[in-house]
This record gives sequence, structure tokens and C-alpha cells, in this order.
Amino acid sequence: MASAPVTGRARALGAWGFEGERFPPSPQLLALLQSRLGPTVPFPRLDRARLRPPASRALPALGVAASHDPADRIAHARGQGLTDLIRLRTGTCPAYPDAVVRPANDDDVESVLRVCVRDHIRIIPWGGGTSVTGGVNVVSSDVPVVSLDLARLAGLERIDPVSGLATLGAGTLGPAVEDALAGHGFTLGHFPQSWELSSLGGWIVTRASGQESLGYGSIQDLVAGLDLVAPAGRLAIPALPASAAGPDLRQVVAGSEGRLGIVTRATVRVRRRPARTVVAATLLPAWEAGLAAARAMVQAGVPLTLLRLSDAPETRVAVAIGMAAHRGVEPLVRRWLRLRGIGEEACLMLCGARGDPRPVRRTLAAARSVLRRHGGVGLGTGPGRHWLADRFRHPYLRDALLDLGIATDTLETAAPWSRLPALTRQVREALSGALAAADERVVVLCHVSHSYRDGSSLYFTFFFRVPPDADAAVARWATLKRAATAAIVAGGGTLSHHHGVGSWHAPWFADEVGPQGAQLVRAAAAALDPVGVMNPHVLLDPLDRLEV
Amino acid sequence: MASAPVTGRARALGAWGFEGERFPPSPQLLALLQSRLGPTVPFPRLDRARLRPPASRALPALGVAASHDPADRIAHARGQGLTDLIRLRTGTCPAYPDAVVRPANDDDVESVLRVCVRDHIRIIPWGGGTSVTGGVNVVSSDVPVVSLDLARLAGLERIDPVSGLATLGAGTLGPAVEDALAGHGFTLGHFPQSWELSSLGGWIVTRASGQESLGYGSIQDLVAGLDLVAPAGRLAIPALPASAAGPDLRQVVAGSEGRLGIVTRATVRVRRRPARTVVAATLLPAWEAGLAAARAMVQAGVPLTLLRLSDAPETRVAVAIGMAAHRGVEPLVRRWLRLRGIGEEACLMLCGARGDPRPVRRTLAAARSVLRRHGGVGLGTGPGRHWLADRFRHPYLRDALLDLGIATDTLETAAPWSRLPALTRQVREALSGALAAADERVVVLCHVSHSYRDGSSLYFTFFFRVPPDADAAVARWATLKRAATAAIVAGGGTLSHHHGVGSWHAPWFADEVGPQGAQLVRAAAAALDPVGVMNPHVLLDPLDRLEV
Repeated sequence: MASAPVTGRARALGAWGFEGERFPPSPQLLALLQSRLGPTVPFPRLDRARLRPPASRALPALGVAASHDPADRIAHARGQGLTDLIRLRTGTCPAYPDAVVRPANDDDVESVLRVCVRDHIRIIPWGGGTSVTGGVNVVSSDVPVVSLDLARLAGLERIDPVSGLATLGAGTLGPAVEDALAGHGFTLGHFPQSWELSSLGGWIVTRASGQESLGYGSIQDLVAGLDLVAPAGRLAIPALPASAAGPDLRQVVAGSEGRLGIVTRATVRVRRRPARTVVAATLLPAWEAGLAAARAMVQAGVPLTLLRLSDAPETRVAVAIGMAAHRGVEPLVRRWLRLRGIGEEACLMLCGARGDPRPVRRTLAAARSVLRRHGGVGLGTGPGRHWLADRFRHPYLRDALLDLGIATDTLETAAPWSRLPALTRQVREALSGALAAADERVVVLCHVSHSYRDGSSLYFTFFFRVPPDADAAVARWATLKRAATAAIVAGGGTLSHHHGVGSWHAPWFADEVGPQGAQLVRAAAAALDPVGVMNPHVLLDPLDRLEV
Repeated sequence: MASAPVTGRARALGAWGFEGERFPPSPQLLALLQSRLGPTVPFPRLDRARLRPPASRALPALGVAASHDPADRIAHARGQGLTDLIRLRTGTCPAYPDAVVRPANDDDVESVLRVCVRDHIRIIPWGGGTSVTGGVNVVSSDVPVVSLDLARLAGLERIDPVSGLATLGAGTLGPAVEDALAGHGFTLGHFPQSWELSSLGGWIVTRASGQESLGYGSIQDLVAGLDLVAPAGRLAIPALPASAAGPDLRQVVAGSEGRLGIVTRATVRVRRRPARTVVAATLLPAWEAGLAAARAMVQAGVPLTLLRLSDAPETRVAVAIGMAAHRGVEPLVRRWLRLRGIGEEACLMLCGARGDPRPVRRTLAAARSVLRRHGGVGLGTGPGRHWLADRFRHPYLRDALLDLGIATDTLETAAPWSRLPALTRQVREALSGALAAADERVVVLCHVSHSYRDGSSLYFTFFFRVPPDADAAVARWATLKRAATAAIVAGGGTLSHHHGVGSWHAPWFADEVGPQGAQLVRAAAAALDPVGVMNPHVLLDPLDRLEV
């Protein structure tokens, strides 16, 4: 396997991304949040001295070198959910893996699995470790736990430029995927917000969506074939453009979250790199008008690659930040917008197109013509350029806010267009009111980021004051999470559009697919992992672990 | 449930389609086939007197009226594969269902399943009965067999015009689907060749593709949600535009061929009816040039809804028929084409677009510009109009040829673009030479009808002389089928692009998905049908039943 390019940057512990990287809130955003939430108390910073995993339990020879280094075990204890950061910063993680293994090929993986099945050792697959659903979290248990890190199963193995198919190791991270493909003139076009840190295998088993999924599809649309090493044996799904030979096993592995085995490589559909990417911004008069415009464009087949629509609160945040640089002209701009029907309920939409200049212009013109019919006022390509420049940096904001005592998290769903207005309201109300008993307020923003002919995703960002005690902080978050998830389920949304089920959404999984659906997935997992050593606390384990 | 519109036309027995419908071969086609195959002996016509099913075995009360009418049992004994017609025409069917039931709702289905599970009675779901893979065939067995006909589970139940979602009974046939949707201004856009006869549920469980799948997607792309009644209980998959909540169960039911239970209804993605459909014809100089042009158009994202490319032998048949009306000008046309680089290896391509006149014109212009770069010479929209007019009538040709002693059948696969030239050659050679030992020749035509960015389907039509003895005829066909399937598997094609696995491809299923893949599907089936009463001879039963 060719070696993957490495970024050479060290991952931060108990925080998003790379060490040294920062994205502090603007004074405007901070003022806005504090005016809404009230004064805050700083949350404890990471204290490495408090992170002391207990000694590793005895492990048999796994056939692959096992690391027992405490730093390695700490780095593989938790994902990147808000409470993962809280637990790491406060040194209150309840469990750590007993070892970290880094297999170099499928035989290595098979060897580790064989021993683990024999001795009932649990395996948690680790790609980029960016799960925000507890998908890679170690749960306290009586049996040893091994984190299987796919970092060495990385790089481009094969490319078929005629068919536009590339085979890459499952541990290949986003930038390495694009670097390797760029050398052949191709792109995968899959850019989730976690792109710099997350892996191909992780994307597949969680059904990830990139920010340009409207043009490129989500990862489950991009996987033509894959190899999986399971306790029961190897599953090789051939790379085919389509097939009517039985159920689509690609779509069983996609979303399996490690329960079926370890995805070791995948063959993905790639495209010629586009000449340019242009993102145009528009203000719509209100959320419903924005949804209607988004729907109209997608149902008309306008070939955008990206469509984001922020609700009015999220738009106010964006405008507050953007206008800070132009204080003097702000009243003029506001008056100009008001004359065009854009007031306080304005919603910002970004429409992106990729390709050669002429088709890009034609696509954006088609989008504009639909947007105008919905009262849209164009803002040009400036806001889009800013967004593109910062799109992978936004998650760093969470750490900086947490330092100040403001917790922020996100959650997402998807539903048919006809349900979206009510669902937006229901989830917003559930989040906004969830802490009323504690007399705490919650700021809730929402946007659409992945649209389909029949519906769209809804992505909620919420902010709340976090108490400095870890358990209290986690409990407060869990209250919000339960309220929002209940509202999503009641409102007919899916449990997750692209974060997955993990262990945190698992108690609600049967609400979405019913007892027979859960039984079907359980049977599939049991077929490939009869003993049940593979990531056993995600997807099918109904225990509420929100406060772990 | 609203009642579905009915065509009021009686289905033919032992032949395609409706009684009284004919599509005789043109004299040119017949001359061409006979010159290649040699003189033929007429094959026996249907002799109803020879069709005498044995008395039905005793059945318990099923909770739904059961028909034991011999005509009903005969009509539900076999699908529409070539050997199904041979068996029916010659009265050599080895088995018939003991009863036909027509449940009117999900409770009825549940009641039938409950009794059948209790008494180990086999159930064969019956939609339109157009399987060409032995998918609905009754196999001789020691236990009773019930054909569960979905005809009464038909009609439009609900429409969500905002989201473009329509919920229909699984037994709704193609014309009834479109009629019901047309009343609301919508289309499903799913037009398989069997459209007049086949059902929504049948499409789903076999992963059917319509002729305009390039624009509308295959049925598995169009299903947003569905209800399934299984022996273990009901599975309700909600209609969602996308979800990361675990494996996609829609894609497990799609392709399940009745093994999991009975699909009773589905919510499908529908679109506004287009103003017009235009199909432009082009001649390409050779197969490889045609494949390259098709690939270039699809990879460039030219928004065609239909793309068909016939190989040179199929093109010669089409041209022979088309030119019969213009005998005098034929030499002139040939000379004109030769000057433009189009000779004996010419391949006919049809490119279709649907929508408003302006975008349709723009799409076809974009296609033309790609085609010109590949040596294409435009033939206008005449051939496309003919093709559109006859597209659902072509299968009737098979019966008329069989009368004359010429058997014809089709089979299909799909593979990445880079494999297609070799795969075409390998399958054609396998078919052409399969009867060499018997000194029989085979005429093989091929076309591409479903294209993707990473590959395409290949659809083979083959003609051979059929002996008047049923067993000898079936054995000759089985020899061809085995040779072609072996070549497909060896050449890296899928077992089926849109006909499914059925019982005829089942011996090769594990060659495609491997033992673990087959085990996974077996486990899914066992989860919903623990006793194994649901259509037990398809998909997972590896017994070779080609000569049954």
C-alpha cells in the first residue's frame, strides 16, 4: 500500500483539530451570546496531570504490536463530542482502551480480530476519532478493550481513470485522499466539516455527507466497492456501477459503525477536478421563503454542488460578525435591504457551483432566477469566499467558547420538505426550553446544508452556559440532547442525517426503524460478528450513555 | 386504499403481455436470422388441454379467500422467462401453486403469513409475474405452495406534492402508477420494458431499472420508504430523504426478492411531469467509440434521461428493418455514411431528454457536441420516435419468433467502463460458441441501456434455433445461460443489472458477494422469516434450476 501524505501536525487533546490552531469568537458573537445567556464562568482547561489511565489489563499477543503508552490510550479514549472534550479536560473519563493497535494490512486486522474473538476482547475501530455520537468511546467493562487505529491502512492503492474509480486504504484522511487524487487530476468531492481529521473508513461506516453533497453525493453514493475484515471472515464487495444481485451490501456496511467488522479499503467514485468553485450569497426574507427557494432549485435540478440556508438567528450571527468591519455603513445597508423586503427575519443562503467558468456562471444564474422569485437579494461572492476559507476552522470555536464557559454543540436530522417548517420549530422549542427548569437559556441556530428533491437536512447549533463541574456540565448537555432527540423522533425526522447513531443515539434507534428493523441489523451484525466483540456499544445497544 | 385503474385487458398465457397483442418479426429480420441460424422447425403453440395441474393439496384456512381454480393456478405457476413460456406452451410445468390468495390489506397479508409459518406452507409473492429469472416460479415440493397475488394492494394512497412523495400499494402496475400520479401532475419516470405488466413491489424487490434511469434513477433510488409484512412482524421504513441512522434498510429490502416478506406499499420520489420527451439518434463508427462517447457524456453530467447504444450487430438489425421502407435510397445512404466514417461497424445511439423545450434543446445540443467529437453522425429524431412508440411491444417479438422455431432471450450485467470492451467480447463469445458442440449457431446482439459515471449495463439479446421437444429446448437454453453467466462472473460483471437473481442466477450469487456476503443476506432473511417460508428458492438457494 502506498504511504499516505501526512500533515505532520500534532492532534490536540481534549479539543478539536491540530495543536496551536485557534478560532476565537469575534467580540460581536461573544457579546451576542453573553447578552442572551448571562454572565459565564470559565470552564477548566485541559489538565494532563489529571489524565491517568489505570494500568492496562493483561492482553494476549495480538499478532500486531500493541501500544500501552498512556498518551496513546488517552488519545483513543473518546471522540470529539462536546462531553468527550469535557471529560478529557477534567480528567473524568471513565475508561480507556487497554491497548492501541495499528495493523498495516488486512492480515494484521484478521490476526487481531481472531485473538479478540477467542478471548472476548472488545475492539473499537478508530479512523480519525472525530465521532460526535460516542461512536469510538470506550465504555467501562469487565473485559479488555483494544482501539484498532487504521492510520497505517492509508493511501491510494489503485486508480482506474477511465471508470473514475480510486481504491484507497480506509485509514486515509481527507487531505491525503484529495492529495493522492489530485496527482491524477481527480477529486472525491467529499468535504465534511471534519475533513482535515476524519478518514475514508470512518465516513463510510457513519454515512457521512460532505458540504458539497448536493453535487457529489454523500459518501454512501460514492462507494462503489469495499473490503471488510470481520470476525466471521472477509467480505469483498466488488466495485460495480449498479447491481440487481440481491440487497445492496454496500448500504449495509455504510452505517454499520464498526459492528460488522473493519472496513480496510474502499473503491470510490471520483471526478475530474473542477476548474473553479464559486459560492454566491443571497438574503431571503424569511425561513419559509428560504426553504421554498431551496426546494424549488433542487426540484428543478439546478446543478448546484452546495446549498446552505441559515435561519434568521444564524444569519444575525453571521451578519453581526460580517458587519463588524463596516460599522459606519451598517444602518445604510439595513435600510437598503429593508426596501427590498429583507428585515429582521432575513435568512442567508449560500449557493455553490464547481466546474468550468461557463457552466458555473450558467448554474448560478439559474439559481439567481429562482431566488429572485422568492424575494432573494444577492450579496455577491464575498460571504461565500469567507465561508470557504474558514469552513474547516469553525469547530475550533467550540474550544475557545468552552474556555469562557459557553458550551456549544450541534445535532442534525433530515425530513421531507413538507415537515421541515414544523420540525424546525419543534426542535428549536425543545432545545430552547430544555433548561427552563434550571432557569438557563439556550441560543439555537439552524441551517439547511444537504438538500434532496424530497427533503433536506436540518443542522442545529446550540449554545448554553456550562457549569465548571464535569458531571453537572454533562448532565446539562444530556438534558438538551434528550429533549432535541425526542422532538426529532416525534416530528418525523431521522435520528441523524450524517453524524450517525453511535452510542448516544442508540436508545432511539428502534424508534426510527422499528423492532423488526433493529432485529434485521442485529442479525446482520451477528452474522459477521457472532461473538459480539466489534464496537458493541454503538447502534444496537439501547442503554442511555449520554452522561458517561 | 383507492382502487387502481385497470386496463381491462386479459393477460396472455404462456406468452408476453396481453391477449391478442402481436409484434411479428419483419421479413428483413426473419431473413437475417434464418440466414444465420439455418432452417427452423415451428415450436409447439400453447395447448391448454395439456395444462392440467394436479389437485390442490389440502390447505388450512388462510384468513383470506383462496382460489383453487386451475386457470388461476396455471397463471401463477411461472414467470416470463423463455423457459417459462416453453414449459407452459408444452404443458410440462413440474409444479403449480396449490392456491392463489389476493389479500386486500396488510392485515390480510399478516393473516396468510401467520398460517403459512405455522404449517410450513411456502409463499411466493406475485406482483406482475414478469420475472425472467425464475423469481416467481413454483418448485416441486413436499409442502403446499401459495401464490400471494398483490393485485388488490394497489392504487395511490397518499401524495405529498410539496416533497414530491407518493405512497402507492405494492401491487400497483406501471400504467396505474403513472395514471394516478398524472392526476396530480407528477410522474415516477420508471419505465422498464415490462412497465405495462409489472408492479411497484416487484420493481423494488428486484431492483428494477426503467429505460430513463439515467434521468430518474433506478427504483432503488426512487424509494423513500416502504412497509413490509414479514413472518416475524412488520417493518415500516419511514420516508426520509436521507439518513445516517444505521445501514439503509431500504437497500436491504430492495433486491430481497420476497425472501424477507411482502412489500405492501412504498413511498416513492416523484417529479413534475415533463412537457416533452425527445429522443435523438446518432450513428457512431464503432462499439468502442460509442462506449467512449456514452462515458464522456455521463461523466460530463449532460442531463440526459435516456442513453442507449446498440452494438454493430444490433444496429444492423435496426437498420435492416428501418431501411426496408427505403430500399431505393439505401445505397445512397450507405455511401453518404461511409464518407462520414460510418461503415459496417456502425453503432446506433439514442439520447433522450425530458423537460421544457429549451432545456431539452440545450441538453441534446450538449450531447451532440460530445458525439461529434467521437465521430457521431446525427440521424434526427425519427428513429427515436419509432423506438418510443414500440418500446413496450418489443417483448411480443419473442412469442412470434418462438412460433417459427427461433428462441430469443436476453440477459444483462453491469461493470466499470474500463472492463466493458473486454466483457462485451467475452460474453458475446461465450454465447456465440456455447452451442458449437451441437453445431448450432447463436446470433448475439448487445446494447448499453443504463449508464453511470463509473460504468454501464450491458444487455445481450440472443437468438438460437429451438428444438420442438420441451426438455431439449430448455437444455439448449440452459447451456447458453450457463456459458454467459460464467463469462460475466469471470469478466467482473454483476450477475444482474436489473433482472435480479431469482432462482436461475442463485447458484452464482456467492461468486458475486462471497460466502460472507451470502451469509449476511441469509441472516437478514432468517431474522424476518425464521422458518423460511418466503420464496425459498430464490437468491440464496444454490441449486441449479435452469432446466426446471
